[in-house]
Amino acid sequence: MLTNRRILRVEWAHCDPAKIVFYPQYLVWFDSCTAYLFESVGLPTTQLFDRYGAVGMPLVDVRAQFMLPSRWGDDLIAESGVSEWRRSSFVVRHRLLKPGDVVAVEGFETRVWAMPHPDDPQRIKALPIPTEVIERLSDPKP
Amino acid sequence: MLTNRRILRVEWAHCDPAKIVFYPQYLVWFDSCTAYLFESVGLPTTQLFDRYGAVGMPLVDVRAQFMLPSRWGDDLIAESGVSEWRRSSFVVRHRLLKPGDVVAVEGFETRVWAMPHPDDPQRIKALPIPTEVIERLSDPKP
Amino acid sequence: MLTNRRILRVEWAHCDPAKIVFYPQYLVWFDSCTAYLFESVGLPTTQLFDRYGAVGMPLVDVRAQFMLPSRWGDDLIAESGVSEWRRSSFVVRHRLLKPGDVVAVEGFETRVWAMPHPDDPQRIKALPIPTEVIERLSDPKP
Amino acid sequence: MLTNRRILRVEWAHCDPAKIVFYPQYLVWFDSCTAYLFESVGLPTTQLFDRYGAVGMPLVDVRAQFMLPSRWGDDLIAESGVSEWRRSSFVVRHRLLKPGDVVAVEGFETRVWAMPHPDDPQRIKALPIPTEVIERLSDPKP
Repeated sequence: MLTNRRILRVEWAHCDPAKIVFYPQYLVWFDSCTAYLFESVGLPTTQLFDRYGAVGMPLVDVRAQFMLPSRWGDDLIAESGVSEWRRSSFVVRHRLLKPGDVVAVEGFETRVWAMPHPDDPQRIKALPIPTEVIERLSDPKP
Repeated sequence: MLTNRRILRVEWAHCDPAKIVFYPQYLVWFDSCTAYLFESVGLPTTQLFDRYGAVGMPLVDVRAQFMLPSRWGDDLIAESGVSEWRRSSFVVRHRLLKPGDVVAVEGFETRVWAMPHPDDPQRIKALPIPTEVIERLSDPKP
Repeated sequence: MLTNRRILRVEWAHCDPAKIVFYPQYLVWFDSCTAYLFESVGLPTTQLFDRYGAVGMPLVDVRAQFMLPSRWGDDLIAESGVSEWRRSSFVVRHRLLKPGDVVAVEGFETRVWAMPHPDDPQRIKALPIPTEVIERLSDPKP
Repeated sequence: MLTNRRILRVEWAHCDPAKIVFYPQYLVWFDSCTAYLFESVGLPTTQLFDRYGAVGMPLVDVRAQFMLPSRWGDDLIAESGVSEWRRSSFVVRHRLLKPGDVVAVEGFETRVWAMPHPDDPQRIKALPIPTEVIERLSDPKP
């Protein structure tokens, strides 16, 4: 699986009175890690609309497991990649690692490739994911 | 299942450039809904420590499904209750409803009942959930 | 000054590792309090565009003073009103009160009444504030 | 004035339905920029307590002016430095710059150097700022 790595610094703003990361913050990181993953292969999400007519990649399902808490001042490594491709949806796996590559958090976002619905601009319509997108985000062939 | 109901107004701050709720915000609401559920049965989470020596109810797993987007200005009804009790953990189910009781979002938080670890104040130790807590959050007997 | 009052519960999500409200959260409340102030006089901000062609009320200046910290579980009373009208901008004053009407936080938001710029949709253009808006948000005449 | 520079990427999570940065987010950045400023001179805020008995640097006043909006995908340069030292408080100036060093946002945080109050652990007591802290954050002598 092609993955993108980023360092996430746990800041004061991310922590709660228990002095650990407030759990929805992990999902905020998932969201940005998906954007950086796409950008890392030349597909900045700010340009998806112009390029493919896509309105975005709305979430339909998210799951996360929290193995270890993280504290103010910690540096985590986030490792993100697409773990599964379906016709018009895909799953992004995120792992947040502590020193020694210990997994502190693992999460899976299921996102839909969508455009504005032709009959109702308030709604969206799922679309087949462009082959180019799948190819760029897949491992290079040997 | 004993449930607590709250109205959630979707505010400007909760929405993203797609003009719908930014998905981690749903988890912020889950967290507060769990606190209000406990408070609704006379167990305000601000007093759990004094009362039971518990350090809190850290998350170990969360899952959410997003069926319908919600927009700035919408009012949602949140319905929360404990759907499963284990020895030292429990599952809180949250449903966010649109008018007509249509489920827009459904989520499950798995939380642990924990106290500071006696050997290392940096860690926590899971504890059996007090019977009183289970009773108060369960349906009244017929 | 016509004011709108709301109760703000300090939730876990609003607090930082010092167990007090993380200060940018006060500005999040200012923003929502301004929206509720407008709504309280029959001017829901979700409808400003349709009604007046306004694109919103972007901030140009904000100031806040923090007199007393607030803690997880506290209930604050927020009192908001327009303290000054200019041609195309106005100042909203927010006071967050503790029991006994002690002021914990005071802030001032300066906002501009704006529409999309006719020559460049990326920019905005300040407009005179509609008389109806000023009248509704001013004290009733004796 | 000794300043620290950081690049801030405007992410999806930072923006509101007007597709620009939601204004309290600027204050979240101010807060983290102050922490990185201290860290840049060898004073990580995570260690202030152990080193000086300080409980933190609570805000007493904040002011910000918003000259230009920023959009999803923009990169801003944040420039932060202490612009004024008083006996037990100090002012941190933050400037967020667009390409060409155009100031998009300018803000001033007034913070207090504080320790837990000896008579009441719920309160804090202002303390003279240690000379070492002032020296490290001041321009090197010529």
